[in-house]
Amino acid sequence: MNKFERNVYLSNVELEEAKELFFKEIEESIKNKETELVSVYNSLDRITAQPVFARISSPFFNASAMDGIAVKAKETYGADERNPRNLKCNKDFIYVDTGDVIEDPYDSVIMIEDVMPVDDETVQIIKAASPWQHVRPMGEDIVASEMIVPSYHKVTPVDIGALLCGGILEIEAIKKVKVGIIPTGTEIIEPEEEIAPGKIIDSNSRMFEAMVKNYGGIPKRYKPVPDEYELIKNKILNAAKENDIIVINAGSSAGTEDYTSKIIDEIGKLIIHGVAIKPGKPAILGRVNGKPTIGIPGYPVSAYIVFEAFVKPLIYRYRNCKAPKGQSVDAVLSKRLMSSLKHLEFVRMKLGKVKGKLIATPLNRGAGVTMSLVKADGIAKIPKNLEGIDAGEEIKIELLKNLESINDTIVSIGSHDIIMDILSNMIHEKHKEINLSSAHVGSLGGIMAMRRGEAHLAPVHLLDEKTGTYNTEYVKKYLKNIDISLIKGVKRLQGLMVKKSNPKNINSIEDLTREDINFVNRQKGSGTRILLDFKLNELGIDSNNITGYEREMTTHMTVASAVLSGTADVGLGIKSSAEAMGLDFIPIGEEEYDFVLLTEFLEDGKIKEFIETLKSEEFTQKLLDLGGYEVEYPGRIIYL
Amino acid sequence: MNKFERNVYLSNVELEEAKELFFKEIEESIKNKETELVSVYNSLDRITAQPVFARISSPFFNASAMDGIAVKAKETYGADERNPRNLKCNKDFIYVDTGDVIEDPYDSVIMIEDVMPVDDETVQIIKAASPWQHVRPMGEDIVASEMIVPSYHKVTPVDIGALLCGGILEIEAIKKVKVGIIPTGTEIIEPEEEIAPGKIIDSNSRMFEAMVKNYGGIPKRYKPVPDEYELIKNKILNAAKENDIIVINAGSSAGTEDYTSKIIDEIGKLIIHGVAIKPGKPAILGRVNGKPTIGIPGYPVSAYIVFEAFVKPLIYRYRNCKAPKGQSVDAVLSKRLMSSLKHLEFVRMKLGKVKGKLIATPLNRGAGVTMSLVKADGIAKIPKNLEGIDAGEEIKIELLKNLESINDTIVSIGSHDIIMDILSNMIHEKHKEINLSSAHVGSLGGIMAMRRGEAHLAPVHLLDEKTGTYNTEYVKKYLKNIDISLIKGVKRLQGLMVKKSNPKNINSIEDLTREDINFVNRQKGSGTRILLDFKLNELGIDSNNITGYEREMTTHMTVASAVLSGTADVGLGIKSSAEAMGLDFIPIGEEEYDFVLLTEFLEDGKIKEFIETLKSEEFTQKLLDLGGYEVEYPGRIIYL
Repeated sequence: MNKFERNVYLSNVELEEAKELFFKEIEESIKNKETELVSVYNSLDRITAQPVFARISSPFFNASAMDGIAVKAKETYGADERNPRNLKCNKDFIYVDTGDVIEDPYDSVIMIEDVMPVDDETVQIIKAASPWQHVRPMGEDIVASEMIVPSYHKVTPVDIGALLCGGILEIEAIKKVKVGIIPTGTEIIEPEEEIAPGKIIDSNSRMFEAMVKNYGGIPKRYKPVPDEYELIKNKILNAAKENDIIVINAGSSAGTEDYTSKIIDEIGKLIIHGVAIKPGKPAILGRVNGKPTIGIPGYPVSAYIVFEAFVKPLIYRYRNCKAPKGQSVDAVLSKRLMSSLKHLEFVRMKLGKVKGKLIATPLNRGAGVTMSLVKADGIAKIPKNLEGIDAGEEIKIELLKNLESINDTIVSIGSHDIIMDILSNMIHEKHKEINLSSAHVGSLGGIMAMRRGEAHLAPVHLLDEKTGTYNTEYVKKYLKNIDISLIKGVKRLQGLMVKKSNPKNINSIEDLTREDINFVNRQKGSGTRILLDFKLNELGIDSNNITGYEREMTTHMTVASAVLSGTADVGLGIKSSAEAMGLDFIPIGEEEYDFVLLTEFLEDGKIKEFIETLKSEEFTQKLLDLGGYEVEYPGRIIYL
Repeated sequence: MNKFERNVYLSNVELEEAKELFFKEIEESIKNKETELVSVYNSLDRITAQPVFARISSPFFNASAMDGIAVKAKETYGADERNPRNLKCNKDFIYVDTGDVIEDPYDSVIMIEDVMPVDDETVQIIKAASPWQHVRPMGEDIVASEMIVPSYHKVTPVDIGALLCGGILEIEAIKKVKVGIIPTGTEIIEPEEEIAPGKIIDSNSRMFEAMVKNYGGIPKRYKPVPDEYELIKNKILNAAKENDIIVINAGSSAGTEDYTSKIIDEIGKLIIHGVAIKPGKPAILGRVNGKPTIGIPGYPVSAYIVFEAFVKPLIYRYRNCKAPKGQSVDAVLSKRLMSSLKHLEFVRMKLGKVKGKLIATPLNRGAGVTMSLVKADGIAKIPKNLEGIDAGEEIKIELLKNLESINDTIVSIGSHDIIMDILSNMIHEKHKEINLSSAHVGSLGGIMAMRRGEAHLAPVHLLDEKTGTYNTEYVKKYLKNIDISLIKGVKRLQGLMVKKSNPKNINSIEDLTREDINFVNRQKGSGTRILLDFKLNELGIDSNNITGYEREMTTHMTVASAVLSGTADVGLGIKSSAEAMGLDFIPIGEEEYDFVLLTEFLEDGKIKEFIETLKSEEFTQKLLDLGGYEVEYPGRIIYL
């Protein structure tokens, strides 16, 4: 196949339709479930294949329900305070503890508290006993032959106790479903191998392994297979013998080396190639050797979405139980969300409870951005063809995290600094219920988020060109009529980040205009961009003369990364980022990185903890260790 | 210690106070957590001890984001439809697939769809490329040194993927907490041993094992230790060396052989003995070798409650994460619930959604009734000293099961028959989302439950003395003015259940008055009791002449069990129960076991399925196999 021939038969079937079609085609193969005998000791979370009936009764005998004496009830009749009755040990009564057998000739128990000792052999009672009082009858808990658990029941710890009480040592359970996972791709390497340009670490198959375990199946991961038709084909045929479900990762797209769909078509049945979801469109659904076979795209987020959409429900079908329905919440969307024209889109969302309202902020929508899933609190499904959803509208979010922990999260939106990670860890270590979540949208983005009520904190470093002061002027301008305070943070060094040893000999802002220099910029609204523009203005430099001025990155670290990878020679950023990436750093100025917030949040316990942490000796020490920072009064509050 | 000396120092500390006191006393021991290196592959659900920072960037290189050609952007400037540009392969461009490295001299990608082949070596473009377009920059997902997960974070499948992408193979995790479980009691046997009167199968320790696993710890169960002070002491000392938490089962009460508290007092510190909860009052909280040591009462329900109250939060404290908060619902109480004078009581509840309302019905409150936990959908915590809660009041229930599955449950309250288990399994096997839950309160109890709107179905067998007909007269009397229907069920044989081979030669109702005969009765309101009283009346027999007439059991099976265990010679019950327990059976009549329901429920999908199952050939066949039943028109509906 040459470069211009493509797998053009990608379809665009709706998700629900695709599921229905797929499950219908593979129905037979998941019907006849194998079962196995499982020791009750190891039966936690297993699914019963049959109802389980008690073999013996529990208790197995009539037992005393009290510590006391066992008596013959009839012989106590007539006893009362005026006619106390004396009873002889081992003749009229025996001593019993709770749980002791009550048997002929005794048929009743008197509590020890109601018994008066007379001498070593004699006791006195002043109340008659009725037959079988304080006797726990045989079978009170479980009667032999009674059903303890029904079929298709997921065994709990309590069930294990009851089964053992009922004399059951083994149960017939549905065999765990085996899921074969085949990573493919010539560029794929094992995580232990040395990384090199052009190589991709196989991470998806390990994520799938963990997902299979979570859903109660047994993963069988194969070693990565290079992009060779016959190799992949043989591996799939082999996996289809050894497993109930086969998952093939990557090779599902329409590229020249994407063989999965053709192979399934050759050796089995290709049911669907292409589902109207985003990410995840190139999903392949088929059948090999009668077994459901799913081709999953390579981008990590696509991989996750397609696995969740098709493999998860499949595993639960095999187990013959319903997948637990995740919790959903309604949240207020913090910024307009465009919908996709042709796909149902799964947008990862960050949630935060601000002023009693749950606020949802979309994370990076790229299919390759694993971190958008790591950071996500939930996922919103945005239907296709929608006009889009406006900021302020309510939106349904399927939670990935616990709502409680979301409610206990400090939501920070604004500029990024490594100190946010440090603070997050310091707070979380001390108060495990509090989390600090930072979204990095630049300083001005943070100010806007604060105005929309999306965040508790907005970290900013915004230089006012007129006064040369930091932050306060911007707050006055963009947040007027709102009761805002500023928590002082740190002073940090901004400067030019260049390759180790500075091979192009870059020494000042002026050098950016040199012909041989490729610059990489930050996005508009970021504090660093404002600083650059301020400096250019001061020096009378026209930004049109800087190659790469229009190339925008959104964090210090991605700028540093661009320099390190050689796509740029220089970028502006903070010293700690340059050091983290092993770059050289030419300082151009010190700036103030502070936290903007509504004054009322100062009363919030979480925020108080944040301020305490800023003020701590430990935090200052960590900054000194890091270098590139200075502190004056961290945690000091300025009411604006 | 003689029988009248007791462990009288049982205290009655409030649950929350007990927790606080206990956790304060053991704070030190859970503070210094050991950590260990864990392979990322096996890190699912582990808790990070440190933040984890990316070692390498992902992607590790600038990569093509499309299938297409890599070009030098500057060389494409000026190309448009009127000025198409021809590019030579391996000179002006190279072919790239998604994911391929983009490196010097190329800095931009044009999608294959925008490229026109000219000849084998030449392509034409009609649009300029901007620098770095369709190039996925190095570090787009994860930048080296970026924090992937914070400390004290529970690792998810997605985290595993991200960690591997970031070049991480091992993480420092908090060591799993080890929980030593010591069953004690001379009467305790292993489930594999032969059961005998006086012996109790050790089931609690296995339930604890499963609970520890569920909560993320490692259980270490020891073999049962007989009730000998030194033996138990040595075992606890040993367990306190090998584990982080020690759990001792039974021996916590105030009986003569309840040594646990004394041992803890001798070898460690006894913090609390006696907590104001029910079941679970004799709980012991202490410290041995600096390790939290909990003495748990022997009754299975007490054992569960105390484990949940103290050991579960302890395990989560060790893991340094919050125990997930269970879901709570408000439900309408179906019958008055008395509160305990001195204890916070944990009442197991059955839930059902009837007519859109969630109805809560208390299950057996006995501490020894494991099945009350197996059957429970949730637990209500009833504060002490309350006046009690009236039927119809709202009550908060902490769910043990999924709310969705509770909503899909057919709630049956009334008379018991083995066919309810059969129907439950048949329906559940066909429709795994539907469950049938039966509570056994007798026929009249079922009618009352139906009147209160607690149930979908009330299975009844109620003989009208005047007409000699079954069920309809009772419905007319007790459910007048309600639109009720009857679903015909089965005809079944009632008779006298006697020991195998009928040693006392019992042949008729008349024999019940014999001096040598001990009878066991059913509770008032049960169909079987009504049948007995009808027969006695018919025969002119005075119930005062029947020994055991006042001894009441609540199901056929417990009556059969009483006969089998020898506490009674005879009881009235159905043939299938006699057969299940291996008893002889003397028939005294056939009765009709039908289902009463609100007519409107006939429209409910679940009920339709119930009726279909009753009508099925398979059901009739199962009844024939069982014996003791006849069917005429099962599933036929009679509108009353």
